[in-house]
Amino acid sequence: MTRIAILGATGYTALELIKILLRHPGAEIVAVTSRQEGQPPIAAIHPSLTDRLDLRLEDLAPEEIAARAECVFSCLPHGASSAVIPQLLAAGARVVDFSADYRLNDAGVFAQWYGHQHADPERLGKVVYGLPELYRKQIPPAPLVANPGCYPTTAILALSPLLKAGLIETGDIIVDSKSGVSGAGRTPKLNYHYPECNENLLAYNIGRHRHTPEIDQVLSAAAGKPVEVIFTPQLAPMDRGILTTAYAKPAGPRSEEQLLQALKTFYADEPFVRVVEHLPGTKDCAMTNYCDVTARLVRGRVITVSCIDNLIKGASGAAVQNFNLMFGYPETMAL
Amino acid sequence: MTRIAILGATGYTALELIKILLRHPGAEIVAVTSRQEGQPPIAAIHPSLTDRLDLRLEDLAPEEIAARAECVFSCLPHGASSAVIPQLLAAGARVVDFSADYRLNDAGVFAQWYGHQHADPERLGKVVYGLPELYRKQIPPAPLVANPGCYPTTAILALSPLLKAGLIETGDIIVDSKSGVSGAGRTPKLNYHYPECNENLLAYNIGRHRHTPEIDQVLSAAAGKPVEVIFTPQLAPMDRGILTTAYAKPAGPRSEEQLLQALKTFYADEPFVRVVEHLPGTKDCAMTNYCDVTARLVRGRVITVSCIDNLIKGASGAAVQNFNLMFGYPETMAL
Amino acid sequence: MTRIAILGATGYTALELIKILLRHPGAEIVAVTSRQEGQPPIAAIHPSLTDRLDLRLEDLAPEEIAARAECVFSCLPHGASSAVIPQLLAAGARVVDFSADYRLNDAGVFAQWYGHQHADPERLGKVVYGLPELYRKQIPPAPLVANPGCYPTTAILALSPLLKAGLIETGDIIVDSKSGVSGAGRTPKLNYHYPECNENLLAYNIGRHRHTPEIDQVLSAAAGKPVEVIFTPQLAPMDRGILTTAYAKPAGPRSEEQLLQALKTFYADEPFVRVVEHLPGTKDCAMTNYCDVTARLVRGRVITVSCIDNLIKGASGAAVQNFNLMFGYPETMAL
Amino acid sequence: MTRIAILGATGYTALELIKILLRHPGAEIVAVTSRQEGQPPIAAIHPSLTDRLDLRLEDLAPEEIAARAECVFSCLPHGASSAVIPQLLAAGARVVDFSADYRLNDAGVFAQWYGHQHADPERLGKVVYGLPELYRKQIPPAPLVANPGCYPTTAILALSPLLKAGLIETGDIIVDSKSGVSGAGRTPKLNYHYPECNENLLAYNIGRHRHTPEIDQVLSAAAGKPVEVIFTPQLAPMDRGILTTAYAKPAGPRSEEQLLQALKTFYADEPFVRVVEHLPGTKDCAMTNYCDVTARLVRGRVITVSCIDNLIKGASGAAVQNFNLMFGYPETMAL
Repeated sequence: MTRIAILGATGYTALELIKILLRHPGAEIVAVTSRQEGQPPIAAIHPSLTDRLDLRLEDLAPEEIAARAECVFSCLPHGASSAVIPQLLAAGARVVDFSADYRLNDAGVFAQWYGHQHADPERLGKVVYGLPELYRKQIPPAPLVANPGCYPTTAILALSPLLKAGLIETGDIIVDSKSGVSGAGRTPKLNYHYPECNENLLAYNIGRHRHTPEIDQVLSAAAGKPVEVIFTPQLAPMDRGILTTAYAKPAGPRSEEQLLQALKTFYADEPFVRVVEHLPGTKDCAMTNYCDVTARLVRGRVITVSCIDNLIKGASGAAVQNFNLMFGYPETMAL
Repeated sequence: MTRIAILGATGYTALELIKILLRHPGAEIVAVTSRQEGQPPIAAIHPSLTDRLDLRLEDLAPEEIAARAECVFSCLPHGASSAVIPQLLAAGARVVDFSADYRLNDAGVFAQWYGHQHADPERLGKVVYGLPELYRKQIPPAPLVANPGCYPTTAILALSPLLKAGLIETGDIIVDSKSGVSGAGRTPKLNYHYPECNENLLAYNIGRHRHTPEIDQVLSAAAGKPVEVIFTPQLAPMDRGILTTAYAKPAGPRSEEQLLQALKTFYADEPFVRVVEHLPGTKDCAMTNYCDVTARLVRGRVITVSCIDNLIKGASGAAVQNFNLMFGYPETMAL
Repeated sequence: MTRIAILGATGYTALELIKILLRHPGAEIVAVTSRQEGQPPIAAIHPSLTDRLDLRLEDLAPEEIAARAECVFSCLPHGASSAVIPQLLAAGARVVDFSADYRLNDAGVFAQWYGHQHADPERLGKVVYGLPELYRKQIPPAPLVANPGCYPTTAILALSPLLKAGLIETGDIIVDSKSGVSGAGRTPKLNYHYPECNENLLAYNIGRHRHTPEIDQVLSAAAGKPVEVIFTPQLAPMDRGILTTAYAKPAGPRSEEQLLQALKTFYADEPFVRVVEHLPGTKDCAMTNYCDVTARLVRGRVITVSCIDNLIKGASGAAVQNFNLMFGYPETMAL
Repeated sequence: MTRIAILGATGYTALELIKILLRHPGAEIVAVTSRQEGQPPIAAIHPSLTDRLDLRLEDLAPEEIAARAECVFSCLPHGASSAVIPQLLAAGARVVDFSADYRLNDAGVFAQWYGHQHADPERLGKVVYGLPELYRKQIPPAPLVANPGCYPTTAILALSPLLKAGLIETGDIIVDSKSGVSGAGRTPKLNYHYPECNENLLAYNIGRHRHTPEIDQVLSAAAGKPVEVIFTPQLAPMDRGILTTAYAKPAGPRSEEQLLQALKTFYADEPFVRVVEHLPGTKDCAMTNYCDVTARLVRGRVITVSCIDNLIKGASGAAVQNFNLMFGYPETMAL
């Protein structure tokens, strides 16, 4: 039984995490934190947890958290996460960080995209990127795992095998992604106000979304040389799900069968990536930790389509997958 | 040509009003106001108005407004509306008020439901309730028209003819209403955050929604004796539309045909109420000023079903209908 | 390990059932049937089952099914279900029937509401109505359990305790329900075509929905005298969820606290009914087997609000709850 | 006053067309046709037309149609449209064709993409493509106008000016489009069944959507040399709206300002294309005949974003725009 604390427990990823952990036989949630005033019961924030988790939100110091919990899931926003994680680690806790704080290897790139200096720059480059499909071996011993971003998960799982196999060129990769609104979090803003989002589909942050350098970094590692993608995030009127359509140039003459076969070979033993021949939709993966991927060759260009549930494989499911690897549980437990 | 000012122009009812007035041959919008800082162009707030209305938001005193405009539509919230309307009237403007401030006849009832004293109590009881189907004659000469609430419109249009004809009892009337989210306005709040509303249906403010006394008052007038309804508002995952299912007891033995006939007779000459034999849905009235109504007799109880577009017949369409009557335009113009 | 067959496996309730059973440690799905031609893999019908259930649809005779499976879940439509269940039972299988075929006790009432004679009328009245909250003791030994309808579940769980406690009158009960579209099944029809349902809310089958006699029957048993409800089903633009708002008259002077207390007492030991003080929304129960219930007293009338996920507590979750009771598993297993 | 017939009046584009024409002072709808049995009133098919259009569906021969109407809008599917249009034209009617039958200039290309020989191949290449922004001069005298496809409208309006101005290369253009479900028509199919579409986003017909050659043809004409696009259509959970994100390579060093300026210059006098600096969303154009367009330069690649209401600028609004030009009405009338 592993004692678990969840930081920033009022958001959607924390809620989803709690739901998964409640059915995990090895997980015991011992603390849920928030700077929320008055320490309400968690079920007062998330009514769906009524009678399911009898804890109150607490505002705890890192040392108190580490004293209680062996594993800490930080659902804090970037900046806030790296402000407490060093102390959690120093106090002996192991951490899965949902924020972007430890995903990038380079403090300069971080500063450029996030607009402020990193609070813990020395650690960058030494933290495993928690995508088991690429970095499974590094995860079990890791004190800290950087849980991947939701958009990057879809782009990386679709494109990495093709880059690794040398089937596509590294230049001129386009990642056109569409996400449900839960990815924007639980804080009310006009952009995510129901009547603004419903019956609407729009692009946002073109060319400046912070998931761009994360995709670049992991694809570059896969390719063995620098990759810079064009990344277009778009908001779709649904709760959950990301569909990513990526475009790349084949490296030499390739067939659609080769592309699909490369994906199938790469993911042959993966429990959570399904290489499918049909064109998948986000609903196929909804409420699951699956990523469905396929590939097409159209007029000489490679097109991949991949989809996930952004709150599960794109956040909390991936986090539990990492937790399972870190703490010796079967990788698929509770997922 | 009538010069028009719109107060509180950043909300959804104001946006809808502008769209209607832009196709009205007798309407010229001369001012749009807001306490918004910096006086942005209205199209910066409502991108759908790009190239359609070239005005900036202004923060104007009532006298300035009245100097520019003959007709003022106040889309301000309750309390704010009655704080400026007396001055607008005194300065010679005629006003259609979207707020609840002048809908109730009794300052005590207002204070009870709205939680504060009315700023202009002497005027209460002298302002016409702007539902032309019931009060058409009083509207043309009125300096001030209280535009009806969205929920009350559906309940009143369904039940008034049956009460007036003595076909239903005045006791024990239940009004079960379901509304799209645009009715809650444009201010972001957790309750109306996309991931909270989508795939959700919930009741709220049972027994204490402020439209209750408004329904009571107008139905009481129709019945000639006091009516107190049970009113249950519910939020449905859609932008627009209200469906109201009302339950009442027949006064004596009645047939379904009698009920439908009473509605048809009452609305025979009405341009915007359609008495239908099928069960209507909100989409039938979407983007129109229609209210569709029908009635059923089930196991000895009368059921009415009525629906509107809450932003049109439930707000801005009704307001233009009132404007047309006040300023001598054909009642259906631009609607 | 219990061997399970699922009849009519192409629909939404079957899909949901499979998803639940896949995480049930005591369930082994051995057959999925359909009259579909060509016996495709189940994942070709339900892509979300890719890599999760490696079975093909089969068109099997009842004897073949009973030879393979100990427990049969029949997701066939009414009429079709009672055409095979007698043979399944005769061959020794135990059955959970999702259809309405064995819910009513009276063949005459069945014929009146379903428009045809019952194929197996002698069995009516001897089959347990599979709502464990009311009939738990009869379920474990039952060869056949009639799984409750989705709407009835919400109405019965809200009203039964109040009727049993004598807190509400038996006359004049109104059940106003709103359902997501998945309740209508997976067969494409214009009424459920996306552009018809989206941004639409409508009432249907007022006074003639077939769940009416089912609600009547179970509430009558709870009350100890005949109950006839006014039942209004409505379709809301969402996948899942039913919210039922019911109206009844208090039997004598009652307080809201008494109503809530009666519900809390009745459900004190129930794992899947949560008596809440807030007004619940369908999303609180989405993807769970919970039913959330509350009560209000407004202007002398009792209002209950209850909600479920129509595919889980309203169908497949309830079926697994019954299965657990029938086969000796913990009642909450996999739920 | 122009007498109008609408063929294939049971679909969504016909419904939208009727709504627009009902507010057109120069249009009189004299016939609505369908092979529907029994000739029901049009309002029985489209309840939103109750009390608005008092016509019955008829099954008329082309000669009868041409005898009654000066202008015929054919909302028939491809194949069916070209089966009657020659006779309508021969009988003296002028026609706006919503189908793809007369959009392509080459009967071979038609046969390749539509899978059957064209019924009227001699006329191909002589019919104006009804996009006034590109072909306004040819429309007024035309006996037959091929109304553009919805996806092509968004791609062509975004990319043509950049191709004409030589700002982008003709090779390697990607058109990634997302559409609401109404674009799929009113015939119920599993793909468009509410619970399949809702909360789902999926790609379909990648590399083989029939709008591909239409985009190719018009962009090739704009560029003055062959263009072959990669076109990816995707279905989004909303009624209306298309958002198209297109990717192209700049021809030489270009700035974002140049791109935007080229669009602004090209559309300076266009009433229905708004070149905006913000990233537009489909809702900005909903229920209007506008197309909103913008451009970005990201990492050396040009990205355009354009959106329309697929039923209006993508179908019925464009058709009325063409009608206005053909019959001498102001181009924006009723739009």
